Amino acid sequence: MAVAEYVREALAGSSVIRKLFEEGAALKKLHGSGKVFDFSIGNPDLEPPPAFHETLVRLATCDAAGSHGYMPNAGYPAVREALSKKCGSEQGVTLNADDLVMSVGAAGGLNCVFKSIINPGDEVIVSKPYFMEYRTYIANHGGKLVEVDSLPDFNLDINAVRKALTPRTAAVMINTPHNPTGRVYPEETITALAAALNEYGKKSMRFPYLVSDEPYREIVYDNIEVAPVLCAYQNSIVVTSYSKSLSLPGERIGYIAVNPSTPDKQNLIAALIWATRVLGFVNAPALMQRCVAELTAEKVAVDIYAERRDAFIKVLDGAGLKYSRPQGAFYIFCKVPSKTAALGDDNTFSDHLKKYLILGVPGSGFAAPGWLRFAYCVSSKIISASADAFKKAVGTYL
Amino acid sequence: MAVAEYVREALAGSSVIRKLFEEGAALKKLHGSGKVFDFSIGNPDLEPPPAFHETLVRLATCDAAGSHGYMPNAGYPAVREALSKKCGSEQGVTLNADDLVMSVGAAGGLNCVFKSIINPGDEVIVSKPYFMEYRTYIANHGGKLVEVDSLPDFNLDINAVRKALTPRTAAVMINTPHNPTGRVYPEETITALAAALNEYGKKSMRFPYLVSDEPYREIVYDNIEVAPVLCAYQNSIVVTSYSKSLSLPGERIGYIAVNPSTPDKQNLIAALIWATRVLGFVNAPALMQRCVAELTAEKVAVDIYAERRDAFIKVLDGAGLKYSRPQGAFYIFCKVPSKTAALGDDNTFSDHLKKYLILGVPGSGFAAPGWLRFAYCVSSKIISASADAFKKAVGTYL
Repeated sequence: MAVAEYVREALAGSSVIRKLFEEGAALKKLHGSGKVFDFSIGNPDLEPPPAFHETLVRLATCDAAGSHGYMPNAGYPAVREALSKKCGSEQGVTLNADDLVMSVGAAGGLNCVFKSIINPGDEVIVSKPYFMEYRTYIANHGGKLVEVDSLPDFNLDINAVRKALTPRTAAVMINTPHNPTGRVYPEETITALAAALNEYGKKSMRFPYLVSDEPYREIVYDNIEVAPVLCAYQNSIVVTSYSKSLSLPGERIGYIAVNPSTPDKQNLIAALIWATRVLGFVNAPALMQRCVAELTAEKVAVDIYAERRDAFIKVLDGAGLKYSRPQGAFYIFCKVPSKTAALGDDNTFSDHLKKYLILGVPGSGFAAPGWLRFAYCVSSKIISASADAFKKAVGTYL
Repeated sequence: MAVAEYVREALAGSSVIRKLFEEGAALKKLHGSGKVFDFSIGNPDLEPPPAFHETLVRLATCDAAGSHGYMPNAGYPAVREALSKKCGSEQGVTLNADDLVMSVGAAGGLNCVFKSIINPGDEVIVSKPYFMEYRTYIANHGGKLVEVDSLPDFNLDINAVRKALTPRTAAVMINTPHNPTGRVYPEETITALAAALNEYGKKSMRFPYLVSDEPYREIVYDNIEVAPVLCAYQNSIVVTSYSKSLSLPGERIGYIAVNPSTPDKQNLIAALIWATRVLGFVNAPALMQRCVAELTAEKVAVDIYAERRDAFIKVLDGAGLKYSRPQGAFYIFCKVPSKTAALGDDNTFSDHLKKYLILGVPGSGFAAPGWLRFAYCVSSKIISASADAFKKAVGTYL
């Protein structure tokens, strides 16, 4: 027995997306990468802003003694101080360095949060569709993901959340701007969610945490604002990263910010630091911590993503496909066409698109069969060149 | 309830060492850091070799497109290729890029290994004394650490391991060179351990993994060689990092290497990659991966650690303290003096030393009461200046 049994099952289960990646690689080898319309992966192709490069070179060059050594597990105090000011102003609260724990990206941060707050058997409520690895992040620490439906426009269904709350609910997790739909929850949604959680907490004496996964906060369009979470609800935690806002996904740098008025905050912060240590992160990478602290005013060129969104929408319109118009992030969630009023089969449609060298991720991979996710963090050339392929593919589908 | 119940217990339990760190900081504030003999933390004070600095600046400056983006979760193929050659020659086997998975330090790598191989309730055998966080790394994934005694010279007691093997044994974990004793297991020990595991495997049809945690492999003295593990036993896995050999503990960079002839290797590698992803590491930090790949011939100035070891031994000899002579790493494990033949109480002695501004970690923190660990990865000045304090402290102790 080479690997644990449940891991063997997980490996078999995750093979759908892996298969897609492999097929994409094979198609590119066969046809040339410029001929394949690969909208499958959320790997931002925009470069980090020039200020990142300048800062990195400057910090690498000065390289003071001890600058690659251990620091407190929570991260450099000066780094947390700088980021707490920015995060506090986004979140409508006053944050201090000690309210932040630097993390190995948002994925690392979420694992630390769940390690800290989940008692075995506890539940975390997540609205469909959702990034499938949330399920494992929660299960890693003995918890169970509880799915609730979203509203038809992919806004949070507060009543559905309300009905799903139980004494085992450790947290409700939201993701805004949202992967895979590009939805940004309006302020009323956050306010209504907070009211529902407060009402439940007062009744049950357990206030579930509101965990907000926000790596796309800076990637929004049409002057939309991402509603703050920390000022809306006392037991709230924000997890974010610089993977999208500075295009640094390979460097694994992010942070966890805790509502400064959370009851028993000191224990929560201590738990997050402990989790950072014992899960094997130990601390967020040192040099990248120091870089991002100097770049609080920087982000990637979001207007380019906005142009691509518009271009992609034109492509889908041209092919007669229906979709949810993204307000943020760089994904568009597209309805699978069908002969009836029902949604079509996403795996069949995804396979059909491959014949036209178009790659998108079936919605089943986000607990939303009948939909397809396209990531438009690719060159405008690829997007516009895909228009004919989309038209042909849809024309021959039904 | 701010944090999970078992986390609350863990936080209370880990407070001994945390208290020591806090006391150390308070002492330094009161007396000045030059007056406090802080041998508590294994944070290497030697700078990375000059070649690291040159490489870092060069790679940061050229900064090709996509160089901070996602790469395969296992790490850059070219990086794994370079490191597999070095690791293979150390381990006496031919390794390829696909036998390695880059990790967020050794702590991250160990968590990925245990996530991959532990079925809930499985056991991992570890020889006392040991780095206490191993216990949590194993428990994180539903496993249980099973302690066995070591021989009086801290060499592995093969018979003790043999007796501890059960059908639930997923792995035997070793750490060589060893924290906290500085012991390096001789080749005969590895051979005997492999024989015991093979014998047990043939009988029980479950061959436990041999997991070797080797971040100190490059830090050895007196021309001693660290015995290879991969060539000794088929079901073996090496985990290591550049935290000590290149003094980069803050950057979180290391790797996992799998025996190329492990049965069902493909599933094991797939599981390690999956674990890297779902535990939230996603991948080892990109820039540091590319740095270490160019530095396979480099290490910190080990001769300086050797001089410090000799200086520390003189200090302990001068004070009449008994210890285990370190062959590697940068720790010395020291017997707590007592009036009888029994070992003294390590917490009492540690408290006594604090009055003389000497900080060491009680052996209870390594499942070895009666001993004290001193880390000599501090300046020679501090070591030699501590001689008088040690003499006085021991003189007033019994």
